[in-house]
Amino acid sequence: MKGSYRYRVYYEDTDAGGIVYHANYLKFCERARSDYFYQQDASPQRGDKHFVIISMEAKFKASGRLGDMLSVTLDVVHISKASMKLHQKVFCGDKLLFEMDGVYVLTNKEGKPVRLSDEDIKLLKP
Amino acid sequence: MKGSYRYRVYYEDTDAGGIVYHANYLKFCERARSDYFYQQDASPQRGDKHFVIISMEAKFKASGRLGDMLSVTLDVVHISKASMKLHQKVFCGDKLLFEMDGVYVLTNKEGKPVRLSDEDIKLLKP
Amino acid sequence: MKGSYRYRVYYEDTDAGGIVYHANYLKFCERARSDYFYQQDASPQRGDKHFVIISMEAKFKASGRLGDMLSVTLDVVHISKASMKLHQKVFCGDKLLFEMDGVYVLTNKEGKPVRLSDEDIKLLKP
Amino acid sequence: MKGSYRYRVYYEDTDAGGIVYHANYLKFCERARSDYFYQQDASPQRGDKHFVIISMEAKFKASGRLGDMLSVTLDVVHISKASMKLHQKVFCGDKLLFEMDGVYVLTNKEGKPVRLSDEDIKLLKP
Repeated sequence: MKGSYRYRVYYEDTDAGGIVYHANYLKFCERARSDYFYQQDASPQRGDKHFVIISMEAKFKASGRLGDMLSVTLDVVHISKASMKLHQKVFCGDKLLFEMDGVYVLTNKEGKPVRLSDEDIKLLKP
Repeated sequence: MKGSYRYRVYYEDTDAGGIVYHANYLKFCERARSDYFYQQDASPQRGDKHFVIISMEAKFKASGRLGDMLSVTLDVVHISKASMKLHQKVFCGDKLLFEMDGVYVLTNKEGKPVRLSDEDIKLLKP
Repeated sequence: MKGSYRYRVYYEDTDAGGIVYHANYLKFCERARSDYFYQQDASPQRGDKHFVIISMEAKFKASGRLGDMLSVTLDVVHISKASMKLHQKVFCGDKLLFEMDGVYVLTNKEGKPVRLSDEDIKLLKP
Repeated sequence: MKGSYRYRVYYEDTDAGGIVYHANYLKFCERARSDYFYQQDASPQRGDKHFVIISMEAKFKASGRLGDMLSVTLDVVHISKASMKLHQKVFCGDKLLFEMDGVYVLTNKEGKPVRLSDEDIKLLKP
């Protein structure tokens, strides 16, 4: 998984401080993870399974504002049948606004972690 | 169904205009509809069925701001086995900020409208 | 103002009913209104003024789902120095999911309605 | 700063996976930080200054679901004139769903970090 995706900052993404609401950087990063799948004619929903995040570290370096065009990158740091670790960055032009490392597992309908299939792994790390 | 519920305006509810983002009044109204059920130890999810809105009319009379404590009312205008119509208002103190009329149907897992049970109706119009 | 814009349905847009959360159709419509301005190298924020909605009527015809690619249209129904009325539709392919008529005014920093400039009107109805 | 606040999980907080959307735990934690101020008749907005997060670490331990009543705690780990570090947990009953450490600074209208006043510190660590 490696890619870069562009999203506009709309009113819905901002708050009364005049900047992007902090939790919304996680939404932009989720959109990029999903778009990675859609771009390959696949879905982030793997059959009846969903990826869920189990831990993250993030740095908020600068603030996005209404109308900014953001670029969101993603890179696989590590992937196994049990989990994957991704590194993502959010830029406005050359300026780094946000970066996060997140660890994800695949869960079944009951919410229990299950193993990634060979196909999942191939899709994520071609 | 008749009630009044209180919700605070947080940063997440506002936008760069410094006021409550317009779509979020619909969220406050949904919370009140749900709290009506929770207050009676029931769930807005009726078994595996969900209420969905099919039409609405709304007026945005004044703007809520960060920190405002809102009151959201709801009244049944009409209810039958096929659908229900609710009138809701959002106040900040005595000041009316928003009001809407919404028509709702109950849908099954496939998203098809189904009839409300006698129990649903009793719960909604005791 | 006349245009059509495309937005993907991500996890953030859906709810536990498995469909797009009703208030989020208003967000998709707001994105389209904003993109109309951005497309012309203008901002939906007019100097220190913002457009706000004062009334709306909407119909929810069918439900969007995770991964759907939506098209959002907009048309000016009426525009004057005092207000404008827009009609917007949200489609998934050929299927109409949502439509709304909204009336908007321009407000200053104090939240008071002000007159649209000739430039605003030219931008909105070229 | 030390406290515990209760919030319901509504439809708006969930996603098509049937669980609370991951970014929304950050919203619940922000509500608790704000309610700490409101509870003392103060505002999280300090004059024309706002707190912003600069880094965080989080663990997602279990999933909240529609209708859950969540408890959100907060504790000051460290506070100085330059920044503060808070530890927050989100519970459903006795079950820990989420915990985060966040570092916050106070910023002025231009978005630049400024020093916390003695009054701010007294409010946050009485």
